Amino acid sequence: MATVLLPLAEGFEEVEAVGLIDVMRRGGIDVRIVYIDEKLDHGKVVTGANGIGVKADTSIENIVFDDFDMMVLPGGWDGTYALAEDKRILELLQAFKEKKVVGAMCAAPYVLKKAGVLGNVYTCYPGAKDEIDHPGYRDDRKVVIDGNVMTSQGPGTAVCFGLAIVERLVGKESMQAVKEGMLLDYC
Amino acid sequence: MATVLLPLAEGFEEVEAVGLIDVMRRGGIDVRIVYIDEKLDHGKVVTGANGIGVKADTSIENIVFDDFDMMVLPGGWDGTYALAEDKRILELLQAFKEKKVVGAMCAAPYVLKKAGVLGNVYTCYPGAKDEIDHPGYRDDRKVVIDGNVMTSQGPGTAVCFGLAIVERLVGKESMQAVKEGMLLDYC
Repeated sequence: MATVLLPLAEGFEEVEAVGLIDVMRRGGIDVRIVYIDEKLDHGKVVTGANGIGVKADTSIENIVFDDFDMMVLPGGWDGTYALAEDKRILELLQAFKEKKVVGAMCAAPYVLKKAGVLGNVYTCYPGAKDEIDHPGYRDDRKVVIDGNVMTSQGPGTAVCFGLAIVERLVGKESMQAVKEGMLLDYC
Repeated sequence: MATVLLPLAEGFEEVEAVGLIDVMRRGGIDVRIVYIDEKLDHGKVVTGANGIGVKADTSIENIVFDDFDMMVLPGGWDGTYALAEDKRILELLQAFKEKKVVGAMCAAPYVLKKAGVLGNVYTCYPGAKDEIDHPGYRDDRKVVIDGNVMTSQGPGTAVCFGLAIVERLVGKESMQAVKEGMLLDYC
């Protein structure tokens, strides 16, 4: 079973995180949601940019690198900056880029850039392009796949990004079944 | 400020609930997420159909009918059945239909049917049509508005349903701003 690591930091974009998790789990992927801030006494609940609290499975301290096939980051600026300042996240991204798959959407390709793992072509939220400041930006596709680096545009493309991950890690048939079951004909 | 009541029961469809809440809050609507099962010791966290826990704001016991302009239900079969068996939900739906606006998506128009408030035309998840068993089903629109009853199809249409609610309760300009900001050109 394919396994994906999805870190949440306060201020993450909710429909991006939940859209990704929902689609990936429906596609048969074991998604582990991890929080990064051990100081917060939040019962593992991480609050997003629009005040929606989502419960994480465990702390990033408890995960084992070898258990995972991919690491993917939802957007939201506050969450993105928090991830970009976390040394554990940056080191994990470098290890995932080296041996596995990394993904990020909306503002979060900024974290890939910070870790030095952003590829030659990528996409992101149009308004985040200047801050990411990296050559190879594409605005003509919802999802851009560049070797083992996958990126996507923003809230409206989260479910489509999830489908692209299911296709990559599980297969086209599973992706197609989830696409039809969730009425995602626009992806 | 427009205020919307959104109840969550165990087994709700996550991207539907979070897509609705995210879009409505971005559109300037005060959304109150309420849980209905006081027996659960879950720190207000309600778990959806794909294992994602979302934190509610308060119990349905604490809400005041007069505070709200609309009540909207996300889908997911287990959550839908739980809502349909809750007398408080059915009575609230009748009161909202009478004086305000009601909405439901995916499987949840089943709850509107059970409460006797489903209108003359509606939509729902294609696979839920037979169980809802009500004349006036439409499969050609993501969102159907029939007076003060609004319905939508399923996971892939949740954000579009949110936009329709923002347009109704806040206005076209706010809806358009959220639509562009979230890259929802397909709605």
